Formats: sequence, structure tokens, C-alpha cells
Amino acid sequence: MMNEIGVKQACNTLFKHDIDALIVIGGVGSFHGLQAIKRYWQGQVIGLPGTIDNDLFGCDKTIGFATAVHTATRAIDKIRDTANAFDRVFIVEVMGRHSGHIAFQVGLSCGAESIFSFENYDSVHHEIHLRELIEQIRRQQKKRDASYLIILAENLWPGGASALKAKLESKGQIESAICILGHIQRGGDPVSEDSVLATQLGLGAVESILSNDDNIMLGYRTNQLSKTSLKEAVSINKPVDESLRIAHKSQLTDYLK
Amino acid sequence: MMNEIGVKQACNTLFKHDIDALIVIGGVGSFHGLQAIKRYWQGQVIGLPGTIDNDLFGCDKTIGFATAVHTATRAIDKIRDTANAFDRVFIVEVMGRHSGHIAFQVGLSCGAESIFSFENYDSVHHEIHLRELIEQIRRQQKKRDASYLIILAENLWPGGASALKAKLESKGQIESAICILGHIQRGGDPVSEDSVLATQLGLGAVESILSNDDNIMLGYRTNQLSKTSLKEAVSINKPVDESLRIAHKSQLTDYLK
Amino acid sequence: MMNEIGVKQACNTLFKHDIDALIVIGGVGSFHGLQAIKRYWQGQVIGLPGTIDNDLFGCDKTIGFATAVHTATRAIDKIRDTANAFDRVFIVEVMGRHSGHIAFQVGLSCGAESIFSFENYDSVHHEIHLRELIEQIRRQQKKRDASYLIILAENLWPGGASALKAKLESKGQIESAICILGHIQRGGDPVSEDSVLATQLGLGAVESILSNDDNIMLGYRTNQLSKTSLKEAVSINKPVDESLRIAHKSQLTDYLK
Amino acid sequence: MMNEIGVKQACNTLFKHDIDALIVIGGVGSFHGLQAIKRYWQGQVIGLPGTIDNDLFGCDKTIGFATAVHTATRAIDKIRDTANAFDRVFIVEVMGRHSGHIAFQVGLSCGAESIFSFENYDSVHHEIHLRELIEQIRRQQKKRDASYLIILAENLWPGGASALKAKLESKGQIESAICILGHIQRGGDPVSEDSVLATQLGLGAVESILSNDDNIMLGYRTNQLSKTSLKEAVSINKPVDESLRIAHKSQLTDYLK
Repeated sequence: MMNEIGVKQACNTLFKHDIDALIVIGGVGSFHGLQAIKRYWQGQVIGLPGTIDNDLFGCDKTIGFATAVHTATRAIDKIRDTANAFDRVFIVEVMGRHSGHIAFQVGLSCGAESIFSFENYDSVHHEIHLRELIEQIRRQQKKRDASYLIILAENLWPGGASALKAKLESKGQIESAICILGHIQRGGDPVSEDSVLATQLGLGAVESILSNDDNIMLGYRTNQLSKTSLKEAVSINKPVDESLRIAHKSQLTDYLK
Repeated sequence: MMNEIGVKQACNTLFKHDIDALIVIGGVGSFHGLQAIKRYWQGQVIGLPGTIDNDLFGCDKTIGFATAVHTATRAIDKIRDTANAFDRVFIVEVMGRHSGHIAFQVGLSCGAESIFSFENYDSVHHEIHLRELIEQIRRQQKKRDASYLIILAENLWPGGASALKAKLESKGQIESAICILGHIQRGGDPVSEDSVLATQLGLGAVESILSNDDNIMLGYRTNQLSKTSLKEAVSINKPVDESLRIAHKSQLTDYLK
Repeated sequence: MMNEIGVKQACNTLFKHDIDALIVIGGVGSFHGLQAIKRYWQGQVIGLPGTIDNDLFGCDKTIGFATAVHTATRAIDKIRDTANAFDRVFIVEVMGRHSGHIAFQVGLSCGAESIFSFENYDSVHHEIHLRELIEQIRRQQKKRDASYLIILAENLWPGGASALKAKLESKGQIESAICILGHIQRGGDPVSEDSVLATQLGLGAVESILSNDDNIMLGYRTNQLSKTSLKEAVSINKPVDESLRIAHKSQLTDYLK
Repeated sequence: MMNEIGVKQACNTLFKHDIDALIVIGGVGSFHGLQAIKRYWQGQVIGLPGTIDNDLFGCDKTIGFATAVHTATRAIDKIRDTANAFDRVFIVEVMGRHSGHIAFQVGLSCGAESIFSFENYDSVHHEIHLRELIEQIRRQQKKRDASYLIILAENLWPGGASALKAKLESKGQIESAICILGHIQRGGDPVSEDSVLATQLGLGAVESILSNDDNIMLGYRTNQLSKTSLKEAVSINKPVDESLRIAHKSQLTDYLK
């Protein structure tokens, strides 16, 4: 979408209104745009991390992430009601672009039996993953309360939730229902965590401008305001918190034994 | 799912526990089951309308309907945030089995630009419907605030939301995003309207038993407790309230002119 | 608040902008204002019932009522968590001006053990009401799960919730906690029931103007659009639905036996 | 509530069931109880911070805190609707026992004009605080959008919200409405942040038992699992995050100038 003409238009607007500094709340796309603008315009540029995907380096959480996780969890709670009532298997596809931040937070907070995300899936072992999943579901179904919830990161499984559903049926004779949460995750009132984070970062951005910062993204890391170059913010991979992965694994182990 | 063996098992359980009367909260399936049971068991049978689909004759609203409508509306409100921000077209598929009660209530309460349901769609005019829809979207997109929300009843459009999306693209060069709300609509805490209705019908059921009613469904019609034979409850079609259809039509007209 | 000067100012504004007809969404106060305006201005006047209190004659439910009931119920659900955990008595004061529409709907939908409202309280028997309440709480506290929830209509008990709490302590040695929901009940997103009602009445108002109606309030009564003179709408008392009172009474009886 | 007899009863139960280790989720009261139990019983004891007040040293956030903050914020959002519509002053009393963790998080996340809490109130300057508040409200009321929201920590202002309301009226001729959120803050479904935290701490507790920890509380501090002696957890004061206080102060300054 971003092209030379658009970039120049944006710069013209900045010149026209005599803007000194630009604070942009956005994700990877917006920050690439910011860098493009800097080629024609010399004002100060500050980025604030604003994306539900939490895929920016230099901050523990992006603005919007906690809300998306909460919205997805609440929606899945409603699905679990049906899943439990009829002992059913559900595949719920969540957003996250190319990372599993949402998948793991959501999976943990709604006690999903399985989380399939970039961090624990390897396309080389596609068939092994499928076999293990089928085995786990069967073990679960031998128990009394046999609902089974799979959180699937978008863009991960070839063909998405419907393809996984088809495989479970053809390879494991396991019936399942799917839910693709989609854009529900991108709207709605913020959870307080996001409102507070946005307020703090907004204040930080103003102070950053006053102290002549440029070309950086502000974020909170381990409770401290932290500055990261815009370039690093979009190019360095921020892995999903190891403790979440461990917590899910142990939860699963306990639950299925 | 219902078979002779299951019916006999159910009856045996009723005999074994010396049950005199059975109150069942359910929909078409449950009430067919109730009628089957009556062939082997002579106790009193009272049905209470409990389904999100509102497709039972003899009651204005079924228990669960108001909650499903509210849940869908809240979810769509979040989608509208994105739709408005990016002037996008969204197709949201809602439940309802073979009737448009959910589609029309949801469509009205979230101000959808289009509602596609059994009541205003005729497969003979499939192509005309599509053409009109494309025209309306185009007219809307000429305006400043061009988000466009389509509520689609499940089981209506051949191929569902994805097929409609494909058609909009191939025939109208219109990009859209889809959301299939699915089982989110079937769970969660009830809205007060449902809690009150369920309490009143529960009380009514007990009194109905005491006054020797049998083979009936209880429901509220125009604020009065009303009794309908179970057979009629499942076989007579309850149309969507005409006033909802008129309200949507007029809303649409005003909005698009 | 309404005075002659204000009324004349309003009329001047109507003259100045050459207004033909006025649709006002409001309650008793707004409708009195409308009638005052009619003394100086001869345009058409249509009222739509918009108040959380549901205290307007000529409509089953006012716009806003269902949302207030739902908000109060959700808030009380959270209180019930604590009440159940610690076997406590809670007095929750709800709005409603001088009627018990909110009190009864809320009381039923959250399964309150007691509802104190204008419909079942008589100041002459103040002491009897108190004695009965203390007895009921004691009976309840002998059982295992002894939480006890009292819904109290505002403007009913002399001194309100705090006075009732003090009496329970002095006369019955019963400890309790109070919650005054207050203005929480007047805001927030509408439940779908309200959105649909508002849409339908809005359409009705436009049509009413076109058919030369004047000085009326529109409302839905037993599913039919109904017209009531503004004067009657504010002066005739609309009692709380008898079936709600019966349902509460029977619920209580069953629960406490 | 805790007495020698109760402590001995608890210990007897532990002996009787041959318990080796005890994991307790609670606050100051529960942890004092744990320490009392250790006088008679030698099993391992692990505390997990579980209180809405967030007043335990050794953890950034207690389990339940984020949910209470979110619930209070959502409730206040509804009050703000009325406050804005009528340009009114509202005093909302929030929980927190003797600390301002809830007051500051809630105040920031709902953009309160004033936060009164232990961290910025000194009883010596009671009259000065009142005078400043009256001045700020008056300045605000000269502007067009004059709603003014005061978050008041419980147990702070002598006489609570009603006393503050009376003072505003007598000393400043300022009308206000009050809302005491009370136990609404202690119940309800958790926000995801709390579910994830509880899952992680639960896992940590099991591992802590296995590695022979005793007499400690587990918590997350700057994203790391951290161990604190139970004694320190309840006796060392955990101040409200400085950055929250600064953010509120700057927000206020900007807003009122």
C-alpha cells in the first residue's frame, strides 16, 4: 500500500502545517512508513507500539495486545460452554500475524488443551504434530469430561482451521467444530491495562520529543520506559515469553495424564 | 441421533425413578424426543422453549434467544470499529438454523446495511439479490463513511459467507472480510431478559403440572402465558416479526439515499 | 428546573429554525416540558419513552430500561460471588424513582432472596416487614449456603440501605454489607433489546409525524405500536407486571422452605 | 477472626489428612494465618498473592488486582456517560484497604480529573487539599465540557465520599453525586492477565514445593518469578508505581490548564 507518491503526500502535509515532530501509534507497517517519511522530512519521529499482535521488539506488550487477548478469551469462554455441554472438540483460530503472542496468552488464560503456534510447530514435522494431537484428543475423550479446545495461530497450519478439521476427521475419525474469531479481536473497549499503558507511553512520547529523541520507539520493558530504534523495533524478533510456553506444557501434561 | 433404543432407555430411566412428570427445556429436536417418549411412557410432559434460534411456534421469544442476539451484537460492535476505521465491507454470518429471527434482530440492533435471510431472499432471484447488493455497496462507498455490514443467516446463501465474499469480488470487484460468529452465540451469561423469562416459565411449568396439563409447550405471547401443543410448537412456522423487517427496510432506504 | 423563561427560550429556538415537529425521547420531566412548550408553539409534538425507570404509561418498556436492568444484574452477579464465598447478607439499592420496575426485574433475574419495593412495602407495616425479613434471613442462615441478597428500591425505606443495615444489626444482630449501584445503571452500551426498540420507535415517530399525530407518546404494548396522550403517559400509574411479583414470591417460598 | 482455637483446628485438619505442604492464595490476613499455623505444624508453606488490593510486597501485581481495576473502570465508564451528559461532578469511592494501587490504576485508566489516595493526601493538609480541589473543579466548570470525576480511596477521607460531598457543597457550593463501588470490585470473571498470572504462579508453587521452599510467597517482579519471605511480604510497604503518579499529575495539568 505504501508507495513513493503516498510518502511524498504525507511529507507535503507535514511541511504545509509546519509540523516539528510526529508521534505515530502503530505496528510494523506504520513504522516502515515512518522510516520512509524520514527520507524527505527531517522532523522528529517517535513511534509508540500499537498493534494487537505484540510483534514489536523493545516492549513487553504493545498497546491493544491485552485487549485482544481478553476479547478472545471471553469469546472462547462462551464456546467452552457448548464444548463442555456436548463433550466436543473445538478449533479456534486466533490472530497474531506471524507470532504466537496472542495464541499463547489466550491458550493459557482459557485453559486450552492444545496451542498450535509458530513456537511449537515445525512444518517438517507436520504429520507428527497431527498424530500427537489425535492421540491426545483420544486420551481426553476416554475421560468423562471430554471437551477439547485447540487454539490455532492464523497463518500457521496450511489451509487453516478448516484444513485441520478435515484432517482430524479423515485421519482420526474425530469430529470437531471451528471458530475463526477474526476482527472481533481488533475492536471494542480497552482493558484497563491498555488504557494505563497508552497513557504512560503518551506522556513518555511528549517528554521524548522535548528531549530531542528521534527515530525511536518507546515501550515498557520489565516496568521501565525503554527506547529502541525504529529499525530494530520492526526487524528484531521478539519471542513469546518462555514462561508461557512452559506453563502451557505443564498444564497439558497434568491435564492429560 | 434419536433412535428407538435411546427412547426406550430414557423411558426405562423414567420408570425406574418413578417419575410422574417431565419438564424439558429445548428446541425442535428435544420436543420430537419428548413426543417419542410418550409412546412408551404415560407421565405428563411439559416443554419450555429453549433454543437460541427462536424457531418455535407459540412463544414470542425462546429462552436463550435474547442472549444470543446480544452476544452477536456486542461482537459485531467490535467488528464495526475496524470496518469504520478502514471503510471496509464485512460479511458476518449468524446462526438461526432455518429462520431469520437472529439475523433480523442482530441486523437491526447493530444497524447493518444489509440483512440476508430466508424472509427476504429467494433462491430464484439469487442473481438479482447479488446485483442489488453490489449496487448498494457501491453507492455507499461513494460517501465519506463507507463501511458496509452484511448480516448473513447461516444455511441461506449457497456456500455461505466465503461464497458471497468470492462473488462480491468476482462480480463487483468489491473486497470484503468475513466473520463466522459460530458457537460464541450459544454460550455465556444470560441477559436479564432471558433470566426473567426462564424464571417465569419455570414457575408456569410447575403450575401446569399441578393442573394436569400434558403434551404442551408453555411460552409468553404478547405478555400472556400461553399453552401450545408440542406438535404445533415444532410444526407451525413462526415468521419473523413484520415490524422488524419494515424497520430494517426503512433504515436501509434512509441510509443509502 | 423548568420555568417560564426556559420554556420561552425553547420556543424561540423552534420558531427561529422554522421547526414543524418535535420528537422528544425522555421521561416524566421531558414530557412535562413538552406540554409547557405547546402553550407557546403549535408544531407537532411526539414523545418517545426514554428513561431507565420504566414509569411511563402506554408502553410495556421504556428505552433504556432493559439496559439498566441488565447492568444492575451483571453488577450484582459480581457481588453474589463475595456473598456466596462468605455466606454474607447484602443490601443492594437500585434505581427506579418511585416505582419497582427495576427492583423486580433485577431481583428476579439475579435470584434475590428479598425484593423491597413500593409494590410490596407499606409504611404502616414497617416494623412487620423488618421482623419478617429478619426471620427469613435467620432461616436462610441455618442452611449451608447462607448468602442472602436484598434488592431495595431507592426512595422506599426511610434512610435507605444504610438505615436498613443498621436496623438488621440492632434488631436482629445480623451483619450485612451495602451497595448503592447509583449512576452505573444510567450509562453504558445498550442491550440489543433497547437498540431494536429505539429503532422501531424512531421509525414509528417519523410515520406518526407524517400522519399528523400530535401530543402523543408512542410505545409498544403487547407487541403492538400504541399511541397514548402525553398527559396520560405521565399521569397514569403503570403497575409492575403482576407475573413478576408472583414469580418472586413463589421463588422465595420455595427457596426458604 | 483468627484465634488460637481456629489455628489449632486448622493444624489438626492438616495432621489428620497427612498433608505435607500447603499452598495458600490470599492476602495479608491469610498470610498471617499461615505464619500462625507454622507454630504448630511443620509442613511446607507457600503463599501466592491473591487480593484485589495489590498490597503485598514481593510481586508487581497480585492475582485479582487487574480484574478489580478493570471492573471498576468499566463501571466508571458508565458513570462518565451521565457525568458528561449533565456536566456533573462525581465522587467514586474505590477499594484498596490502605493503599492506592487500585485508586491510581483506575484513576488513570478512566482519565479521572482527581485521584485522592494515601500517596498524595496528608491529613495535616486536609483543608488545603479541599481548597485545591474546589479551585480545580471551578476552573473545569468554566469550560464547555465540565464533567469532573474524583476517584477516592476507601479509608482515606474522614467520613468517606459522603463527607467529601458535603464539604464540596458547604465550602464550595459545588453539587456532586457519589458512587461507592464496593464489592462489585471483588467478583466477576477474571481478565486474562489474572488468569495467566494465576496459572504461572500455580505452576511455580508446585515447583517451589518440589525444591523444598518454605515460608515464602511467590510473585512476578519485572517479569521474573521471585521469592519473598511471608513475613516481608506482609510487613514491607509496596509503594504505588511512581510512573502512575507522574502520569496522573501531568494528565491533570494538561487537562485543567
